[in-house]
Amino acid sequence: MKPIKIGLLGLGTVGQGVANILTRNAAEIERRTGRPVQVVSAAVRNQGKAEALQLGLQVTTDAASVVNDPQIDIICEAIGGDDPTLGLIEQALSNGKHVITANKALVAVHGNSLLKLARENNVVLAFESSVAGGIPIIKALREGLAANQIEWIAGIINGTGNFILSEMAEKGRDFADVLQEAQELGYAEADPTFDVEGIDAAHKLTIMASIAFGMPLQFDAVYTEGISGVTREDVGFAEELGYRIKHLGVARKRSDGIEMRVHPTLIPEKRLLANVNGVMNAVLVSGDAVGPTLYYGPGAGSEPTGSSLVADIIDVVRAFDAKPAHRVPALGFQHDALNNYTMLDTSNYQSAYYLRLQVLDQPGVMANVTSIFGELGISIEAILQKEPEAGHDTASDAVEVPIILLTRRVREGLIEQAIERVQALESLVQPVVRLRVESLS
Amino acid sequence: MKPIKIGLLGLGTVGQGVANILTRNAAEIERRTGRPVQVVSAAVRNQGKAEALQLGLQVTTDAASVVNDPQIDIICEAIGGDDPTLGLIEQALSNGKHVITANKALVAVHGNSLLKLARENNVVLAFESSVAGGIPIIKALREGLAANQIEWIAGIINGTGNFILSEMAEKGRDFADVLQEAQELGYAEADPTFDVEGIDAAHKLTIMASIAFGMPLQFDAVYTEGISGVTREDVGFAEELGYRIKHLGVARKRSDGIEMRVHPTLIPEKRLLANVNGVMNAVLVSGDAVGPTLYYGPGAGSEPTGSSLVADIIDVVRAFDAKPAHRVPALGFQHDALNNYTMLDTSNYQSAYYLRLQVLDQPGVMANVTSIFGELGISIEAILQKEPEAGHDTASDAVEVPIILLTRRVREGLIEQAIERVQALESLVQPVVRLRVESLS
Repeated sequence: MKPIKIGLLGLGTVGQGVANILTRNAAEIERRTGRPVQVVSAAVRNQGKAEALQLGLQVTTDAASVVNDPQIDIICEAIGGDDPTLGLIEQALSNGKHVITANKALVAVHGNSLLKLARENNVVLAFESSVAGGIPIIKALREGLAANQIEWIAGIINGTGNFILSEMAEKGRDFADVLQEAQELGYAEADPTFDVEGIDAAHKLTIMASIAFGMPLQFDAVYTEGISGVTREDVGFAEELGYRIKHLGVARKRSDGIEMRVHPTLIPEKRLLANVNGVMNAVLVSGDAVGPTLYYGPGAGSEPTGSSLVADIIDVVRAFDAKPAHRVPALGFQHDALNNYTMLDTSNYQSAYYLRLQVLDQPGVMANVTSIFGELGISIEAILQKEPEAGHDTASDAVEVPIILLTRRVREGLIEQAIERVQALESLVQPVVRLRVESLS
Repeated sequence: MKPIKIGLLGLGTVGQGVANILTRNAAEIERRTGRPVQVVSAAVRNQGKAEALQLGLQVTTDAASVVNDPQIDIICEAIGGDDPTLGLIEQALSNGKHVITANKALVAVHGNSLLKLARENNVVLAFESSVAGGIPIIKALREGLAANQIEWIAGIINGTGNFILSEMAEKGRDFADVLQEAQELGYAEADPTFDVEGIDAAHKLTIMASIAFGMPLQFDAVYTEGISGVTREDVGFAEELGYRIKHLGVARKRSDGIEMRVHPTLIPEKRLLANVNGVMNAVLVSGDAVGPTLYYGPGAGSEPTGSSLVADIIDVVRAFDAKPAHRVPALGFQHDALNNYTMLDTSNYQSAYYLRLQVLDQPGVMANVTSIFGELGISIEAILQKEPEAGHDTASDAVEVPIILLTRRVREGLIEQAIERVQALESLVQPVVRLRVESLS
């Protein structure tokens, strides 16, 4: 059978992964698809550097020539960013080429219009690799769990963040210290903002939530909080209470709307998700029929990400000239059946909370604090009151101690009220630390 | 659009799960597929009992009338067993109906001929629910990881067995005691042979291995060992050494052939798989590109199993009148590209081993034992020599003590030789206990 021809955009880490897999596993892939798949050309920034890789590909610095090449059937985009990538993908789709991309930011922000363009041109835009690297989570949500109304998803979907939090927990290290090591190891970018401030995770959550619930991509609706504010102290107190702190993307469908939020989260230590360490990713999905299922694997890297890009290529090749109606819809739901659910305001989010209050060790402080929560009807699950550190004179007014509260599930607006009132107490010496707690059950 | 009509065979636990999901989630499923899906009739054994369920279905005791009903598009088989099930499925396929089944035994044993019949009639035979209940593991192997040469899979794929081993480990209970509880809870059948002797797991492993490596189904080639011989003592010693005992199905592709084996296995306690407890299932898959990925969820139950049956239905409905060539092949590889790999003899299997030697506490025993392993070139990873129990006269010849050995990875034939020689030692008082150890890395 006539080979399917692939044009690669980018030959960096991910692009090389794709080229390597398609070469090394060519025979296995043909056994799966029934026809050969060949990378015919790759657009690169630096021609000399690309040629030095000796991948046996035609390389060019003219990316437009790849997306306009009439012999190419599928464009595999591994450049990242949105300029010139967005224009190249649009051109490829308009030229009737299928497009496979790992570009989470582009899909999360421009996905709705790109999917429309793909439909108009009867081609596929596929992006398994954009979420959780090598874990086939999009296929699980879109197809494997299609019998279910998905209730919620909670995922560790940023390997850099998880590496940092794992190191902080295992070795009692500080955030800044571990971040620097992660940068040296190449796990974190020189500008780590996307990873440590949760933006990368928010892109991925946007994509998963659309597929889980059947709604347009809405990156702007994600509440995003990173891990740069997580301290060694809070990691330690969480552990004393039987929890680990993980950076989670959580999307939940409630009867009144959708919560999409990315934030550091306390998880009971017994949960599998709490035991996912280092740069690994995992996503827990709860469906009304199946209950909880979990998907674990490498969230980044050359061949893990390449594995998902090539899986998308194989999907396209297996059904190469199928009618569009016979393909699985891009977001798992028919495009005209996507719902415009209400996006809940953060004050309506529901969660349990970990609160750390740094207070002066004076009589009556605890009573003042707990009465505020009592008056607001917020149930306390656990209180941890730490002794002043040894060496302090406990009789003195100036000694600070932390009080840690775990609340039951409550509306975020109510917690905000409680925090405001607690912060007005004279004995409070610094702003309340607030982290969310998810039991994941 | 014209509804797709489903005929159900069986309205037991699983059949009811399918009916409930298709009813409750009808709107969501239509949003996914673009057309309605309706259960129109169900074949049951006891008409009165089935009618009492009030599922709003036409029920009949004449199963043949369902598979021969010209208005029915898809047959969903949830009877189990092979008589009359095999004949009904053959009739349905011959009638040009797609067939969805949860029947692992039938697929493992008769799958090759059934898949041929399905191909000849241009219909799908799908069986996601036959392995690991609600976990979409077949889709992951067949599609999500299609870029990879799968190297090995290792799964906890029998919930009953995992429940029993989890209870033994957590509470220090005996096998027989926990089995009885499992039977009372309804987790184990009155005749528990299929579960506790590993046959059910072997059926599931057969199916996964074919899809992982692209080969015909070969149930007879699976080495099968159950958990009925696992003792509380071995669970305890394993724990001392940092391991948990799990009943695993392991399939491995080596350059010289395939290992397929089901047996109790020591796993390092840090692995996620070692922390999968109770009736839950999990499958770890290692691909050459992606590395390790893990899939976790409920391995049985009405709606979890129903979730996978309905996912298969949705797959068929989404591509209802697609050309057969555009469908994903049943085993993930083109049927004419399946390989007849060599099935390795058990003596060629490779694994690390846990050996428990019950010996008389005499001088020189340890030297005798270790010299046997030394002469055979088997490396010892760890030795645990237990003191005689308090109260015994340690000077007496009659005191028995256990010696536990962990070996490095070795050919099974060599371990058999070592065991034979150890058992010839005079100081050995009972047959050597042998369990396999997998590092899963």
